[in-house]
Amino acid sequence: MANRFRNTSTRALRAAVAFGAERIASSERLMGLVYDSTNEANFASVSHHEEMLSDQPRVRAYHRGIHAAVSPGDVVLDLGTGTGLLAFMASRAGASKVYAVEHSDFIEVAREIARVNGFTNIEFVQANSREFTPPEPVDVVIHEQMGDELFNENMLENLLDLRARVLAPNGRILPARFRLFVEPVTFTPSMRVRRLHNIELPDDIDLSAMYGSPLLAPYETGRFEHFWARPGSVSSTIGTPEPIMEFDLNTLESIEALPRRHRIERTAGSDAIADGLCVWFEAIFDDDTTLSTSPLAPPTSWGNRVIRLDREVHAGERIAYDLDLYHLVDASTWSVTQA
Amino acid sequence: MANRFRNTSTRALRAAVAFGAERIASSERLMGLVYDSTNEANFASVSHHEEMLSDQPRVRAYHRGIHAAVSPGDVVLDLGTGTGLLAFMASRAGASKVYAVEHSDFIEVAREIARVNGFTNIEFVQANSREFTPPEPVDVVIHEQMGDELFNENMLENLLDLRARVLAPNGRILPARFRLFVEPVTFTPSMRVRRLHNIELPDDIDLSAMYGSPLLAPYETGRFEHFWARPGSVSSTIGTPEPIMEFDLNTLESIEALPRRHRIERTAGSDAIADGLCVWFEAIFDDDTTLSTSPLAPPTSWGNRVIRLDREVHAGERIAYDLDLYHLVDASTWSVTQA
Repeated sequence: MANRFRNTSTRALRAAVAFGAERIASSERLMGLVYDSTNEANFASVSHHEEMLSDQPRVRAYHRGIHAAVSPGDVVLDLGTGTGLLAFMASRAGASKVYAVEHSDFIEVAREIARVNGFTNIEFVQANSREFTPPEPVDVVIHEQMGDELFNENMLENLLDLRARVLAPNGRILPARFRLFVEPVTFTPSMRVRRLHNIELPDDIDLSAMYGSPLLAPYETGRFEHFWARPGSVSSTIGTPEPIMEFDLNTLESIEALPRRHRIERTAGSDAIADGLCVWFEAIFDDDTTLSTSPLAPPTSWGNRVIRLDREVHAGERIAYDLDLYHLVDASTWSVTQA
Repeated sequence: MANRFRNTSTRALRAAVAFGAERIASSERLMGLVYDSTNEANFASVSHHEEMLSDQPRVRAYHRGIHAAVSPGDVVLDLGTGTGLLAFMASRAGASKVYAVEHSDFIEVAREIARVNGFTNIEFVQANSREFTPPEPVDVVIHEQMGDELFNENMLENLLDLRARVLAPNGRILPARFRLFVEPVTFTPSMRVRRLHNIELPDDIDLSAMYGSPLLAPYETGRFEHFWARPGSVSSTIGTPEPIMEFDLNTLESIEALPRRHRIERTAGSDAIADGLCVWFEAIFDDDTTLSTSPLAPPTSWGNRVIRLDREVHAGERIAYDLDLYHLVDASTWSVTQA
């Protein structure tokens, strides 16, 4: 018996909502405020920064993307600078001035790293970005506001606010183009956990009669209805992956313009078990640089939420699911029904 | 920014201790009682049983081990029967009678699976094993009481109690032989998270000056001092693995006979980063069947705790650590110092 004390679905946001704040969850804006207040505590750990800075696909994509996007003389704003990495890259890329905005006291760490490394054109601003207006128009807003399920760090609200208030007429956001995937996948057999009635056992022990058994009801905790894919667990997609949505923060009209209800239809490429619908995203910096959190791409510091299916499919079979992104910023509210 | 809301080190036991029960932690016996009380809640989830039953190395080892150890006519006791799997296997192996002991109400599920599968010689007993005495001597006690760090499910106390009270003179425990490893390992580069001052970044950004910086102190949460190895993260051991202890529950004199302080000395086989000391165990059923939770073996439902090192070593270098297993049953109290 093992893996017992690990609660991989404990999320601060969820906890904040669960403890008597259900009403907050009825508003995207209020959910954003909950995120703001828990964000500071969550990133107030060196280990989180170690994780992000050790994530090579992340660091490489930002390095390439920033050097391609920032031109000498540009004014840059780095939203949520953390250790300052993106601000440093922008400075190296030739920015004349970088405003590095960070709401937490961790900004003192970034300031010290800047000092030690001799950066002189970075101004560190301790503020919530929504309460900061730089004294000059900004050519490039750089950010890494992507959560595991893309939206869960208030990316949209924060960046549309900056776009409206501080960006120069030809200014741009980096990264601005995103693709979100919620894709039927199959797991490698050694990493698969089937529903009780589907588990095959030796000695002719048959669990199929437990399907729908009322005896199990008290023990259905929902712990695996959404879970985090362990690295290496996804072996392939069931069909050809297609993003459920694609948008550009430079042109997106409003948060409301993003559709919440999606039909996911795929044709199975082979006989397989569709273990679940797996969430990942791509951040497209430019034609040469895309950062992918796909479970089939090199591992990143982002996790992959899986909405459990455990459905047997046959080669050529058409499967369809209706997905409702109830609160964009809280993927624990995303739900799926077989169509 | 990602992986933010996953608290992979939240353990019910730890939480129980943290919330004002520090004194309990000063006693192995009281820690055992804390485990007993949290155990019921933790395994009262179908998903935990799905995980264990989907763990092929686990199911295969028990299947082979039980069929080799149980002879026709044997009286068997299954300690912590859960879904009943080991009891069913013992029955199939020819046991004349199986006492399947389970303290939680989940025993009704096992009873139903037994009924559906036509088992008639299994007696389900809802009790803590320490309060149950079968009416006849037991030839084989079977169990799966191994926690992620072997001891953290009260395995020793429960089985030494049964051995003393219910086992026939030539009776045996299965599995009885165990090897515990706390082994220096290196991670695959894409899964490695280095300490802040050791992280290498592009654009000549140098973090080495942050070593020991007092600015970081408020953000040192200890979150990565012990962490769970993600599957596939361990690429090899630093030296030749050796168990820090090996024992046989059929002959072990007492819990106190197990040494708590260990010197771990290894010679690095090549230049590497010693990312941490990784915990795993082997359960030896017989000469043919061993269940290993090594991160280099096929994945199981057990996790691998890693005590962080992040130390560069060179081929031929001798490294030494002193390990103190302060409370055997609570690996969060295990500590390491460089020797």
